Amino acid sequence: MNILKIIEKKRDKKELSQEEIEYFVNEYTKGNITDYQAAALVMAIYINGMNDEEITNLTFAMAHSGEVLDLTIFGKNVVDKHSTGGVGDKITLILMPIIASLGIPVAKMSGRGLGFTGGTIDKLESIPNFSTTIDNTTFINNVKEIGISLISQNLNLAPADKKLYALRDTISCVDNIPLIASSIMSKKIAAGANKIVLEVTCGSGAFMENKESAIELAKKMSAIGKLAKREVVSVITNMEEPLGEAVGNSIEVIEAIKALKGDMTEDVKEVVLELGARMIKMAGVGNDIEENKKKILENIMNKKAYNKFLQLVEKQGGDISYIEDVSKFEKAQIVVEVISEEAGYVEKINTKRIGEISANLGAGRIKKDDEIDKTVGIIVKKKIADEVKKGDILCYVYANNEEKANFACSELKKAYKISTKKVVKPATVLEVIE
Amino acid sequence: MNILKIIEKKRDKKELSQEEIEYFVNEYTKGNITDYQAAALVMAIYINGMNDEEITNLTFAMAHSGEVLDLTIFGKNVVDKHSTGGVGDKITLILMPIIASLGIPVAKMSGRGLGFTGGTIDKLESIPNFSTTIDNTTFINNVKEIGISLISQNLNLAPADKKLYALRDTISCVDNIPLIASSIMSKKIAAGANKIVLEVTCGSGAFMENKESAIELAKKMSAIGKLAKREVVSVITNMEEPLGEAVGNSIEVIEAIKALKGDMTEDVKEVVLELGARMIKMAGVGNDIEENKKKILENIMNKKAYNKFLQLVEKQGGDISYIEDVSKFEKAQIVVEVISEEAGYVEKINTKRIGEISANLGAGRIKKDDEIDKTVGIIVKKKIADEVKKGDILCYVYANNEEKANFACSELKKAYKISTKKVVKPATVLEVIE
Repeated sequence: MNILKIIEKKRDKKELSQEEIEYFVNEYTKGNITDYQAAALVMAIYINGMNDEEITNLTFAMAHSGEVLDLTIFGKNVVDKHSTGGVGDKITLILMPIIASLGIPVAKMSGRGLGFTGGTIDKLESIPNFSTTIDNTTFINNVKEIGISLISQNLNLAPADKKLYALRDTISCVDNIPLIASSIMSKKIAAGANKIVLEVTCGSGAFMENKESAIELAKKMSAIGKLAKREVVSVITNMEEPLGEAVGNSIEVIEAIKALKGDMTEDVKEVVLELGARMIKMAGVGNDIEENKKKILENIMNKKAYNKFLQLVEKQGGDISYIEDVSKFEKAQIVVEVISEEAGYVEKINTKRIGEISANLGAGRIKKDDEIDKTVGIIVKKKIADEVKKGDILCYVYANNEEKANFACSELKKAYKISTKKVVKPATVLEVIE
Repeated sequence: MNILKIIEKKRDKKELSQEEIEYFVNEYTKGNITDYQAAALVMAIYINGMNDEEITNLTFAMAHSGEVLDLTIFGKNVVDKHSTGGVGDKITLILMPIIASLGIPVAKMSGRGLGFTGGTIDKLESIPNFSTTIDNTTFINNVKEIGISLISQNLNLAPADKKLYALRDTISCVDNIPLIASSIMSKKIAAGANKIVLEVTCGSGAFMENKESAIELAKKMSAIGKLAKREVVSVITNMEEPLGEAVGNSIEVIEAIKALKGDMTEDVKEVVLELGARMIKMAGVGNDIEENKKKILENIMNKKAYNKFLQLVEKQGGDISYIEDVSKFEKAQIVVEVISEEAGYVEKINTKRIGEISANLGAGRIKKDDEIDKTVGIIVKKKIADEVKKGDILCYVYANNEEKANFACSELKKAYKISTKKVVKPATVLEVIE
C-alpha cells in the first residue's frame, strides 16, 4: 500500500478500495502519512467526490480509529440524536429527558467543540455541581437505573475524524457532503448508536446554507446508513432564525426547563415533536408518528419528562433547586434591551450574525481552550413574520462587559431586516428524509 | 489576502488573480503558508487547471522568488536551451560549444538534480579538474572572453519552484502540464534567458510518455512565452530509445567529444542540428533553418566547435589532455557484454528501465546527497530497427560492483524486445512547435 498511489487514484477520479481508505485513515492517525499528503488527498476527494461505498468505508475506518463505545447492553435499538448545529439549538436538552421518560434508554456522550455557544455539555454545566465527567461504569449504571445519562466524551472516539476535521478547516475543505457525512456518522458509530435521528439544519445560521444541500447531505447519510447497517432518519429544519428564544448557555438551559414544563415556542415544539416521534419509532415502541407526538405531549403535560430531567440532574450531582426555581441561576451583570427603530414585520434575521454576536459576548469558544461565560447571550423576542412597532424590544443582550454589550446591541439591530409588508411565518420542519 | 480564500477559489475552478498567485508564492517561500495548505492548492490546480495567464503569473512569481541572473550585458538575444530530460541525453555538451563557436554567447547555469544519470554539470566534472563552481564575475568574464561558460547554479534561483517541486513529488502532482510548464519557464527566466529552445522528450524514457502530451506541454510553454515576452521554440524528440550510445557520465562526455569531432550517431545528429538551427535563428544570426544546419556541420568539420569545447575546458581548469585522448578517462573496473539470445530486429527498448539500471549502477542520484559514480553506465550498441543475430552484443555494462553488473546484464536483456519482422527506424525529431 502506498499513499502516492492512493492520492493518484483519487486525483484521477478513480474509486478507492476499502483497504486503501483504511490504510490512509490508520497511517494518517498514527502520523505515518503527513498532513500535506492528507491535504492533497482531501482536496482530491473534495473535487472528485466519493461514491457511497467509499464514504461508508471512510466512515467505518474513522469510527474504528480509536475507542468505540459499546452500548449493546441496551438492546438492538440504541437510538441517538445529532444536530448539524445552529443558533439557539437546545433540542437535546429538551428531547432526551422526554425520550427517557418514555422508557427508551438515553446514553449520550458528547464533545464540546467550537461554536456560537457551548455544546450540550457546556450548557448542562451551568447547573451548579452537575457533573459531566463521570466514568463509564457509572455512566452505564445511571442509564440502567434511571434510563438516562448525558456525559462529556471521555473516550478517544474517532481520533482520525478529529485530525482530519482540523486539517479540513485549514485548507478550505469543510463544506463537502461526503466529508461532512462521514465525519458525523463516524462519531455516531463510535459513540455506540445504531439508529440515528439527524437534525439537519439549513439557512443562514447553519452549516448547510440552503435546503437543497441539506437534503443532499441527509440523503447521503441515509445511503451510508444503509451500507453501514445503521438506520438513519433526517429531519431538515429551518435555521433562517434562531431556534426558540435563548442563544447562550444558562439561558438556553432555562428555556429548556420551561419547555419541559410545557412552555415552549412553536418552532422548538415542532422540532421536538418531529425528532422525538422519529426516535420513538426507531426504538420500536410506536409506529405511528402522530401517535408518538401525542405521547410526547402527554409526557410533558403529566410532568414525566420534566421529572426525568430532575432525576438526571440529581443523579449527576446537580443542584435541583435551580431547576425548580430558575430565577436562582446566576445572571449576567448587564441586560440591555435592543429596541426597534422601525415599524413593520420581521422579514429576515441574519442568524449567523446572531451566533457571532453571541460568541463575541463570550457564550462560545473560538479556540479549543477558550473559557465560556455561561451567563451571557441573547434572548430573541421578535422572530420572522412578527409585527414590530417602533420602540418594541427585538432582543435582550445578556453581557458582562459594557463595551461588548453596546457592540452586540448595535450589531443586533443591523441583523434584523424589517419590511413594511406582511411576512408569511416560515415552517421550522421542512422535510423528513428516511 | 487570505490563503483560505485562494484555495477556495481554485477548488471551485475560478481564476486566480496575479496578486493572489504572488501572495501564495511569496508567503509559501517564506514559510508563512504551510505545506498542507500548499498541497491542497496544488492538488486543486492539478485537477481544475489554470489558464495561460495564471500559469504565466505563477511562472513570474516563482522566477522572482529568489535571485535572478542578469545577462542583458550580452544583448537582447540571450538564448538558452533546456531539455525535459531523457536517457543518454548529452545534447547540451555537444550543442553549447557549437553555438559558442558561431559567435553566440553561451552563459549557462545548471542545477544538478536527480535522475538516471547526473546532469550536465556532473558529467563535466568527470573531466579532471574541470571547475563548475566559479564565481559570477569570472563566469561573466569567461563568456566575454571565450564566448562560453557552463557552471553549477550558485545563485538561489527560483527557490519557490524548488520548494513546490519537492512538495509535488510527495503528493502525486508532478505530471501536470501547467505545473511543469511554469516550473521550467520560471527556472529559465531566473537564469537570465529571454529566448529558449526546449527539447521536449517523449516516450518511455521521458517525463511525457506520449507525443500528444509533449505537444500539449510545448504549446503551453509557447503560450506562456508569448505572455511572458520570452520567445520559445520546442523541438519534440523521441525518447523511445536512449539518445546516442552512452548512458552515464564520463562515457557520455566521451561520446560528446567524439560528436564534436564529427563522429556521432544519427539520432544525436538530428537533435543537435534541429535545436542548434533554432538557436541560431533565435540569436538573430541566421533565418534559414537549413542554412543554419549547414553552419553547424561546417563548424564541426572545421573543428571550430571542438576547439571551443577545448577552450571551455581549459578556461575552467580542466585537463585538456583527456579531451585530446579520451582513453585517459578513468574506466569502470568491470565491463560486461550483454549478448542477445534471440535473432531478429529490435522492436522496442524499455528506455525507462535502461535509465533505472543506469541509476542502479551508480550513475545517477536517487537522493539529493547521493554520490555519483562517474565511470559507470551503459553503452547501447543495438537500437530500434537494428538487425540482431544470436550472440550479438546488445549493450556493454560499465560497473564497479560485480553483483550490480550481473543484475544490469540480465535486466538489460529483458529491456529489449526482439521481433522476427523487420522494424521501421523511427524518427528522432518528431515535431517543432513555435
